[in-house]
Amino acid sequence: MNMASSLFRRIIKKQVTVGIVGMGYVGSALSEATSGAGYSTIGFDIDEALVVSLNSQKQNNFLATTNKQFLISCDIVCICVPTPVNKDNTPNLSFFESAIREVANVLISGQLIIIESSITPGSVRNLALPILEKSSLKVSQDFFLGFAPERIDPGNKKFTLYNIPKVVSGFDKTSLRLTARFYGNLVEKVVSVSTIEVAEMTKFLENVFRMVNISFINELSDYAKVKKIDILEAINAAATKPFGFLPHYPGPGAGGDCIPVLSYYLLDDAKKHKIKLRMVDAAMQVNEERLKKITEKVANIMNHKSNGEANNKKPKVLIVGVAYKAESSNIRGSVSLKVWQQMEKMGAEISYHDPFVPRVNGHYSVPLTRENILGNDVIVITTDHRNIKYEELVKSKKPIVDARNVLRNYRLPHIIRI
Amino acid sequence: MNMASSLFRRIIKKQVTVGIVGMGYVGSALSEATSGAGYSTIGFDIDEALVVSLNSQKQNNFLATTNKQFLISCDIVCICVPTPVNKDNTPNLSFFESAIREVANVLISGQLIIIESSITPGSVRNLALPILEKSSLKVSQDFFLGFAPERIDPGNKKFTLYNIPKVVSGFDKTSLRLTARFYGNLVEKVVSVSTIEVAEMTKFLENVFRMVNISFINELSDYAKVKKIDILEAINAAATKPFGFLPHYPGPGAGGDCIPVLSYYLLDDAKKHKIKLRMVDAAMQVNEERLKKITEKVANIMNHKSNGEANNKKPKVLIVGVAYKAESSNIRGSVSLKVWQQMEKMGAEISYHDPFVPRVNGHYSVPLTRENILGNDVIVITTDHRNIKYEELVKSKKPIVDARNVLRNYRLPHIIRI
Repeated sequence: MNMASSLFRRIIKKQVTVGIVGMGYVGSALSEATSGAGYSTIGFDIDEALVVSLNSQKQNNFLATTNKQFLISCDIVCICVPTPVNKDNTPNLSFFESAIREVANVLISGQLIIIESSITPGSVRNLALPILEKSSLKVSQDFFLGFAPERIDPGNKKFTLYNIPKVVSGFDKTSLRLTARFYGNLVEKVVSVSTIEVAEMTKFLENVFRMVNISFINELSDYAKVKKIDILEAINAAATKPFGFLPHYPGPGAGGDCIPVLSYYLLDDAKKHKIKLRMVDAAMQVNEERLKKITEKVANIMNHKSNGEANNKKPKVLIVGVAYKAESSNIRGSVSLKVWQQMEKMGAEISYHDPFVPRVNGHYSVPLTRENILGNDVIVITTDHRNIKYEELVKSKKPIVDARNVLRNYRLPHIIRI
Repeated sequence: MNMASSLFRRIIKKQVTVGIVGMGYVGSALSEATSGAGYSTIGFDIDEALVVSLNSQKQNNFLATTNKQFLISCDIVCICVPTPVNKDNTPNLSFFESAIREVANVLISGQLIIIESSITPGSVRNLALPILEKSSLKVSQDFFLGFAPERIDPGNKKFTLYNIPKVVSGFDKTSLRLTARFYGNLVEKVVSVSTIEVAEMTKFLENVFRMVNISFINELSDYAKVKKIDILEAINAAATKPFGFLPHYPGPGAGGDCIPVLSYYLLDDAKKHKIKLRMVDAAMQVNEERLKKITEKVANIMNHKSNGEANNKKPKVLIVGVAYKAESSNIRGSVSLKVWQQMEKMGAEISYHDPFVPRVNGHYSVPLTRENILGNDVIVITTDHRNIKYEELVKSKKPIVDARNVLRNYRLPHIIRI
């Protein structure tokens, strides 16, 4: 029996060890699925504390380690490391390249390497593969290579890893077959596409679609504001159209580690190919202006306040919600944290409340007591978690910059919409 | 019993006469619905030939006329005239204003005037109402005013006027109540919104959303082409995501009398309010570039051809599909006709095939016989009607510019994608 057939049969029988490189929210969700499905799973991360914490949870069939040598014990290795942007919004592939290098260092014959990290179309073939082949092993011949972009929506309870169809691709037919079979044991539906590049493009299309539509509704919301039209009512009315429309809602701009990040990756690659992407370009501009709009509103109130009081006390800002989206603890790329940073630069003292994020920036989430609210000069709502006592904020009569329209039913002068 | 209650009861009993001003595809569909529901319906149009043709169809409860005096016979008057753009893409409100003036001229007490035409948010209140009140009748007091934007999708057999929820609004509560009741007899579901401006905004949101997404996928398709990635496969894979994505497909750019037109209306109004709409601006630029791309490809082939043959014969271009969208006979705003015009300017002789449009520009649709195909230098597919013998075009080996990706399964050098 050849190598591929043997691996295929062992996947079916769940007699394989799965290595997951990167134990962030993508890797964690995947490791839960693989260990839950009965695969022996080893989670790799560079974060010692995280590894200790994961091991202390005593998940079945699961071990975490910082020791990359154990990659040798794995039949299938899934790369789930983050691919963020640098400060200038260019791709930061350091985690990704380093993970691939470490896999290449211990690559053994017969392994299936699956990349889940989001990377620019062409990167599996042109960036990851050359590093892997430095091992002197050859793809298709000595090892197999798949790409299966992660589609997790943090905080979404309806759609999870299990019931979101999984798009899979392979460098060759065997790689595709193995990758599809592997995920077939984990999720309800596997969607095989013909090339790795199509799968890479799929991920970009999904995410940049969101970016474009979020920026579109944000700029339309500005227009509606000037026209004194309730954009939320219009969105809900438009959403009754049974085709050709998908509602998006105005807010502080897109955050997280996918939507704006992949849009920047796309722009970077398009620039390299001398292609102008007007829509995506405009979307990023609108998104950046969004942050400016919030900080300007907060700063205006702070300045107004300090002029009036003519004292040297630091202005106090309460940020409500620091996760990048509702019902999630994920703070990566969160607009709230950017607002925090900007306000701190302007000399403000920050406190925050977020039931999903107990600690951030060395601060602890404060309960929304009357005292904690009244001590502030401005309140900014940047995340629309449910089950927050918004009415307590309103009752305080403190100026509120509501970047999420959670207080849309109040028409009060101290509530400022962006 | 007051005027409003009386009209309300008569609407329920279908004892009202409905006047429909503008018998284009919106007015025709509405008149079919009103006459079909048992309302006596009078269709008004300035086109004598259209009126004669409509009357010859002997629809039940329906009469067509050019004589605006009969507006006096109507209890409810629906304005369904087109609101196109001028050559410089600024709003052309001449049909609309003229229709409103004619209604105002014969306005009588107790009438309900409903506007279905697409107009910039604020136009019912600030443009139409002042004209109507020149009649010396007062809205809310002497007559009622509703706005109920048309949502018809030409060629869509699944969603028609009957099962597309109808968004309705009124200048006052009584106007809203009457308007909602009227449409309640015609469609499955009525969605009442709180102001006329919200309803106006709803229509814009729906249409500009489409514009933005069509341009986005068109520019992403250009990127994918350079990267040699099959964008259609990526779109179909992305469409398996059960939330947060709505597929749009690349093509010759958005046409028709709604999507690009309302986008230009919005840009015009935003400019007046000194608001920059980056996304919509970019969308229109991408859309205009699309047309340029097609005509350039066709011109390249034509020029190549004429250089090679060194004769004085006019290059011949066959346009396949002149309707602005598949399975429709609607040619308004059709990109095909813009290609036609451009090619004719460049000296080409045009013929066309479209099973839905027997005659246009003084030409008749030619059947796709071998002779009619082989006589051409270039074939351009601009509309993706089903049931066209595309394989006959392919077999001819004539250069084909395929602006709709209908020949996506062929990989042949004479098929050029845009």
